[in-house]
Amino acid sequence: MVNETMVGLGKKRSVIREIFEYAKIRSAQIGKENVFDFSIGNPSIPAPASVNETLKKLIEETDSVLLHGYTSAQGALSVRESVASSVNRRFGQNTNANLIYMTCGAAASLRISFGALWEEGDELITFAPCFPEYRVFANGAGFKFVLLPSAVGTLQIDLSVLESAINERTKIVLVNSPNNPSGVIYDESNIVGLTDLLKRKEKEYGHPIFLVADEPYRELTYGKEVPYLMNYYDDTIVCYSWSKSLSLPGERIGYIALCERMQGVSDVYAAVCGAGRSLGYVCAPALMQYLVERCGEDTSDIGAYRENRDLLVGGLRSMGYDCIEPDGAFYLFLKSPEEDEVAFCERAKKYELLLVPGGDFGATGYVRVAYCVSKEQIVRSLPAFQKLADEYFK
Amino acid sequence: MVNETMVGLGKKRSVIREIFEYAKIRSAQIGKENVFDFSIGNPSIPAPASVNETLKKLIEETDSVLLHGYTSAQGALSVRESVASSVNRRFGQNTNANLIYMTCGAAASLRISFGALWEEGDELITFAPCFPEYRVFANGAGFKFVLLPSAVGTLQIDLSVLESAINERTKIVLVNSPNNPSGVIYDESNIVGLTDLLKRKEKEYGHPIFLVADEPYRELTYGKEVPYLMNYYDDTIVCYSWSKSLSLPGERIGYIALCERMQGVSDVYAAVCGAGRSLGYVCAPALMQYLVERCGEDTSDIGAYRENRDLLVGGLRSMGYDCIEPDGAFYLFLKSPEEDEVAFCERAKKYELLLVPGGDFGATGYVRVAYCVSKEQIVRSLPAFQKLADEYFK
Repeated sequence: MVNETMVGLGKKRSVIREIFEYAKIRSAQIGKENVFDFSIGNPSIPAPASVNETLKKLIEETDSVLLHGYTSAQGALSVRESVASSVNRRFGQNTNANLIYMTCGAAASLRISFGALWEEGDELITFAPCFPEYRVFANGAGFKFVLLPSAVGTLQIDLSVLESAINERTKIVLVNSPNNPSGVIYDESNIVGLTDLLKRKEKEYGHPIFLVADEPYRELTYGKEVPYLMNYYDDTIVCYSWSKSLSLPGERIGYIALCERMQGVSDVYAAVCGAGRSLGYVCAPALMQYLVERCGEDTSDIGAYRENRDLLVGGLRSMGYDCIEPDGAFYLFLKSPEEDEVAFCERAKKYELLLVPGGDFGATGYVRVAYCVSKEQIVRSLPAFQKLADEYFK
Repeated sequence: MVNETMVGLGKKRSVIREIFEYAKIRSAQIGKENVFDFSIGNPSIPAPASVNETLKKLIEETDSVLLHGYTSAQGALSVRESVASSVNRRFGQNTNANLIYMTCGAAASLRISFGALWEEGDELITFAPCFPEYRVFANGAGFKFVLLPSAVGTLQIDLSVLESAINERTKIVLVNSPNNPSGVIYDESNIVGLTDLLKRKEKEYGHPIFLVADEPYRELTYGKEVPYLMNYYDDTIVCYSWSKSLSLPGERIGYIALCERMQGVSDVYAAVCGAGRSLGYVCAPALMQYLVERCGEDTSDIGAYRENRDLLVGGLRSMGYDCIEPDGAFYLFLKSPEEDEVAFCERAKKYELLLVPGGDFGATGYVRVAYCVSKEQIVRSLPAFQKLADEYFK
């Protein structure tokens, strides 16, 4: 009667969402300040002042019919030109407006790219831990979703694991750096190894393998460089979003950028336009397009996330916890002190600590701590983490 | 290498878009005021003052993290409550926030609904003339697209044609009233006939047939009532958009509403949520959600469209043209004075009149005149229409 796959997707709430809902109920019971909700990746820092100033200016100074009217499906030309010139200036590329496609955020960027590339029997490879919705978008486009473990300890891409999994049906390799949920940035040497492998496999199979870079956290880094993948590999598609850098996740604004040296680039761009059309995306929200044209390179006060990270990593390590120091994003991937991380999360709840088990990210034995919260929450939560630690390390 | 269907969709520009691009080139040659572009359905009337006032107020008064943050996937609760109460008050329904799903506009509403309902082998029926993208959205979801001719002369739904086409695999009947491109509103008697037929067929086949109402033009009417389909048929899904009523087509804001008496309504709603997720729609743009919560019942100055309609219909009829007087929307469907309407459009170009051939809407022998233009353009174009008429009627 209806599509059962869609019913399943609609009914099965994500684990993150479950915890988020629990947090609301628990806050009502004992007060919001006593619940340490580390479940959700909603930026805690306001948009930079330039965002609201620019929005008001646009509203006051632009003709309403133009400002709120349809843009072309791929985005307003002036907006795409500004994105292309930013990419060229920042990353030494030579792209242009006709290789940029504005989207309703990174999820749309990914889903449209997948739809553009998929052919019957194709596989998409990505690396655990990863954002759980990758599977949903890949399956939605028709792909077989192949999730590979990362290198133990470092969570870099394990190239020998990749080499044994890659095959003639591999159409896409998807990478996310800085990574959600681990905060890891792939080293340049890791990226060189990855792209060398892909180049060799492209030659062997005689067809392109597309490297899709999901980059919503590109600007959220704490010193380490994030290699720009087009500089290493021509068949690269960058999926970007301003959700995190401008603290605008609800406004749905991002883009797809194709490397100008990509094989069959004009067909790939046409397929992106076709997939956007087929999926019902008429254009990215117009007001937000004009906003990012004007302040797309601004960022929220990212220093606040660094402060949270340092407080949390320092505090947890001193208690005996084991974790990978995040290079970027606003997530900490904590090793569960007991094998079953779901049991650990349940125990943490006793102290009002709400953490997300790693299973949903494809990595059991770990939990995700989203530290895009107030500094005060971090400070107030540390005694609770200590009590929890006492159960394991004393 | 890439998905050829998507390449095709991306490369094949719609006829409307071709004419729109021609208009730009021609305007550069002879001046914008001398080109009578009636090709595109972009509202010509600014958003009501309340829109920009409310946007500024929201920006000034709301916490940035809340205003621009993720809403829940189905839309912010307060927004869905306001939509439900508007539907209940205006149309005597008894729906609630949990049957409303906020979307990125009518295209997303349709595409998500189709994705939610589709099962292998399913068919979707709609009526010519219709919006050409219906086929794209239906095929994108997997449906066989079945386009039926409307009743000659009136362009109402031809119930005997429908009865002979409907079958066990019919999952959706899609109606659009006021209609793009004809401006026709289906009479209440036509809707009663349609829904009686569907009820009979549901009983015969033992499964629901969903009636999907695409209603972006509901508020753009010139006196005639638009029956609210939930009042006639329980298995109704209303797909709404504020693009035309608030002149915000670029901002992508709309909703899906399910009739509370629908068969298996909770599964259908879950499937809608699942399809939105699978298609990469994280949430509808947050700022625009809060906007329509506050002024979703306002409208642009629709009187201007009526004035345009009266001028155009009166003028063209007096010259000898044959057309159906539009009850709503801002389109006029003009009978081509020669059988081949493409040839007629080419001839019209000589007088700088840019009209869209009916073939793309599934109705050859007609052309669409989009009168969402300035009154001045209508006045200045009438002598050109007269010269064109002279070639046929003299």
